[in-house]
Amino acid sequence: MSGRLEVIPLGGLGEFGMNCAALRAGGDLILVDAGMMLPGRRPVTSLGVDLMVPDISFLLENRRQLRGIVLTHGHEDHAGGVSYVIDQLRVPVYANRLTLGLVSSRLRERGLDKEADLRSLEADRPVDLGAFQVEPLRVTHSFPESFCFAIRTPAGRIVWTGDFKFDQTPIDGHRSNLARLAELGQEGVLALFSDSTNADVPGLSPSESSVREPLENLFRQAGGKIILATFASSMHRIQIVLDLAREVGREVVPMGRSMVSNIRLASRLGYLRTDREVLRSRDDLARIPPERLIVLASGSQGESRSAMSRLAVDQVRQVRIEPGDLVFLSSRVIPGNEKAIGQMISHFYRRGARVLDSRHEPIHASGHGYREDLKLMIDLTRPRFFVPIHGEFRQLAAHASLARSQGIPPDRVHLMESGEVLGLSPDKAEILGRVPSGRRFIDEGIRRQVDQDLLRDRRFLATDGVLVVGLRLDRMSWELIGEPELISRGFVQPEDSQELMRETRARIRRLVSETGANGKRDEGLLEEMLQTGLKRFLRKRTRKRPLIVPMTLAL
Amino acid sequence: MSGRLEVIPLGGLGEFGMNCAALRAGGDLILVDAGMMLPGRRPVTSLGVDLMVPDISFLLENRRQLRGIVLTHGHEDHAGGVSYVIDQLRVPVYANRLTLGLVSSRLRERGLDKEADLRSLEADRPVDLGAFQVEPLRVTHSFPESFCFAIRTPAGRIVWTGDFKFDQTPIDGHRSNLARLAELGQEGVLALFSDSTNADVPGLSPSESSVREPLENLFRQAGGKIILATFASSMHRIQIVLDLAREVGREVVPMGRSMVSNIRLASRLGYLRTDREVLRSRDDLARIPPERLIVLASGSQGESRSAMSRLAVDQVRQVRIEPGDLVFLSSRVIPGNEKAIGQMISHFYRRGARVLDSRHEPIHASGHGYREDLKLMIDLTRPRFFVPIHGEFRQLAAHASLARSQGIPPDRVHLMESGEVLGLSPDKAEILGRVPSGRRFIDEGIRRQVDQDLLRDRRFLATDGVLVVGLRLDRMSWELIGEPELISRGFVQPEDSQELMRETRARIRRLVSETGANGKRDEGLLEEMLQTGLKRFLRKRTRKRPLIVPMTLAL
Repeated sequence: MSGRLEVIPLGGLGEFGMNCAALRAGGDLILVDAGMMLPGRRPVTSLGVDLMVPDISFLLENRRQLRGIVLTHGHEDHAGGVSYVIDQLRVPVYANRLTLGLVSSRLRERGLDKEADLRSLEADRPVDLGAFQVEPLRVTHSFPESFCFAIRTPAGRIVWTGDFKFDQTPIDGHRSNLARLAELGQEGVLALFSDSTNADVPGLSPSESSVREPLENLFRQAGGKIILATFASSMHRIQIVLDLAREVGREVVPMGRSMVSNIRLASRLGYLRTDREVLRSRDDLARIPPERLIVLASGSQGESRSAMSRLAVDQVRQVRIEPGDLVFLSSRVIPGNEKAIGQMISHFYRRGARVLDSRHEPIHASGHGYREDLKLMIDLTRPRFFVPIHGEFRQLAAHASLARSQGIPPDRVHLMESGEVLGLSPDKAEILGRVPSGRRFIDEGIRRQVDQDLLRDRRFLATDGVLVVGLRLDRMSWELIGEPELISRGFVQPEDSQELMRETRARIRRLVSETGANGKRDEGLLEEMLQTGLKRFLRKRTRKRPLIVPMTLAL
Repeated sequence: MSGRLEVIPLGGLGEFGMNCAALRAGGDLILVDAGMMLPGRRPVTSLGVDLMVPDISFLLENRRQLRGIVLTHGHEDHAGGVSYVIDQLRVPVYANRLTLGLVSSRLRERGLDKEADLRSLEADRPVDLGAFQVEPLRVTHSFPESFCFAIRTPAGRIVWTGDFKFDQTPIDGHRSNLARLAELGQEGVLALFSDSTNADVPGLSPSESSVREPLENLFRQAGGKIILATFASSMHRIQIVLDLAREVGREVVPMGRSMVSNIRLASRLGYLRTDREVLRSRDDLARIPPERLIVLASGSQGESRSAMSRLAVDQVRQVRIEPGDLVFLSSRVIPGNEKAIGQMISHFYRRGARVLDSRHEPIHASGHGYREDLKLMIDLTRPRFFVPIHGEFRQLAAHASLARSQGIPPDRVHLMESGEVLGLSPDKAEILGRVPSGRRFIDEGIRRQVDQDLLRDRRFLATDGVLVVGLRLDRMSWELIGEPELISRGFVQPEDSQELMRETRARIRRLVSETGANGKRDEGLLEEMLQTGLKRFLRKRTRKRPLIVPMTLAL
């Protein structure tokens, strides 16, 4: 127990919510989680970026040391990146069965399912990965059978909480393993790495069960259809809806690709108790009267083309929104989506429905512990060192200050950023340096990572458009044949810009004769001159910087 | 009093928060407000759209009838569009002096100040505009001297509230004119058009004065610098900060272009009481010690390149954020900006500052009345008809249901959308039809409205890029001379796509020989064929749809 451990978060700290951390000791490397991130309504969305995964160049460089990937649970921000890194890393992936099910359906979509080595991880059954022993402990969270990892390393034991809260009345009856956490505290925990999502929310987080009664009361008041949106991975919430539907005499039709497939998968694996009399499919819609229907839809964030967005504008043929219908947004608002959600809500109101969300009714409970939950975790594990993980910097800072107020000496609390390397030995923790980290942008269309140059071009194209300059050039006399052709797309409107185009052509002729006079009769050089010269000219005239694409056809 | 009035909101209802409404009666037209809207973090931002103004084609068609524009107050969403419509409409603009000051500085920027006819509007001094008499009444709001309009029309009197709340302790001492509103109620109000912004917030809105004490307490606790962000048009809030600065012994340095110029304008016009010992400029920064400094900055929404965003990342040379500094966000969060604001907050924390916002401390008061304010307006004016204005549809719906609960019969409550024409006569209100309405997108670079086609091109360019195809063609034999040239920008990465480019060239050769074989040897036709043929081919191969720009050189 006197070796050294390096802990290297590659994401999940600060702005980039893709959880992924490398642990290295004694020449062995393991990866805890491999998340991805949807760009949401960020500007990159409009640049053709479908999702972002962490930069794994550090792992690729040290691939020989890598022993495996262990996943705390199956949420996209923890497990969604596996299918984008596994073909390069080729190591076993350990997770609970539901998580493995979700991972393999993603792998199948990308044609990689044959190559992946997926291994089931069960609570309280440690697995050995080189110098590490990873012991999965149950913690309560909005995903079934989520794990906190107690990891034995050459430097000592660390606890990596994953996402958690302490829910004493979980829907599936499986409580967090408080006893083992306390025992670890007794045995000695070198460092605690703990979920900071709600580090600035006072109190104890409400139990998932607390949404049951409000939902039941509201369901009983409803006269027309019920539309309920939640995350497709929120199995406990889905269980509550299925259970309540039976009690209030309604049938449930799941809608949205992920909602339908996740429910199917979770039922098959036994994570969801379903009932054929209650759980129906779209084929049953024609038969179910409005006052007996619950549509359980994905798209709670107002994502375009999601089930909820289509329902809101009456694009789902079998379900027409009518006065008297009741819409539930039983989910949190992911920052950045407020505007899209607001517009969706307005569309429902426009059709006469009423919309209830978690700001006004207690119909959502967070899966992440509040300050009292976080204090309990610290008290149970009594770590020597403390590192807040999973959160934006202000949450990490709030969590760090909470840990200090719990009696952990300030010099043992480490506020890290993604890419930093924390060196841990039994009596010391220090930042040793940095490894490359950041986001890789994935464009599913071209099926690969897109680089910064490509995104830079797209960004200019988006705001300033493109001007294609076609020249026919007599290579001998270095004179233009005919007029330069100009094609503007997304830059200016040709009908408004004849004067500008005339001036641009004059400028082009001048640039051509300048290169000719210089004796530098080179097409490559001419194209460069055209790009710089026209860029400056157009910038001055229009305050815009279109991409300039010269195409010289020389004879 | 038996004529008919048409009320036509051209914006401000539903998603498009550019307030602007036309009133028409007896062959005369007036416009109440002419707002604009910043695209914020919406996808259009990245399409080079700087701002949006209402579609005024209805006004252009009826320009001869237009008698003037009356502005309730100077916020951008009510007055910011004037400089984009006035050159086409050329009618007098009436507003309070501060609003006129803001409007003329915008007109100056666009070189239109010489042409505009700006006329000062004062409380309780009605102006006649053809068939209309517009009587401005003071209401309290976050902009000084805001007006509610009582408008005499051939059909009867209407009340157009503008933005308001009922603040009994306003900072400038000017209360809402409750007496006149009550008198109008006695005389008879045909219709009330009332601000719906906070129609779903229960209770009475807190007074602007209520933020004074919390701010004072926090100012007194601060040991280091104070950075306070608010809207540059929030003159009452700025007054509070200036007053408190003197009391706690600090000096105030305004930062950000709009903050500096608005403070200068408002002081000059007497809307702000300033004090040379307190209000300083950037030149004084070197001299003022941290514990005596308040930086009053614009950019509370995390706008890129704003004073606040630059402060957060230490880009303001004279002001380095340090541990112990206290940052106040004394403003609301405009929906859609949450992510940008969150990132800005994290940057301040990263530098050791603490950030206080209105979610945790009562350091902001809305300028818009809550439900009890709205009820009071209805009770005072006792209108025959009621129309909620200024809000997203869910707020309008909440306001309509509130009006019904106040005793206005449901058939006299009209939920309108922008572009609808409401016909009002003394005993009847009905929707008569629609006029064109919507957003005009302004690209300041090309200094004009951009049309849908241009935006469509930019949207495709942004996500899928452009492929330029250059061909040399022998016009006689209809055969290609050399290989087709391909230039991809923002589409695929050439080094990853040699196979794709090879296939594309083969496809081009086939398309050329097909047009040749058909005997349709026409370059225009060939280019069309290339566009459709390649679009389909690339779509299938890459799931992307780049703009395809063919350029043919026929010899």
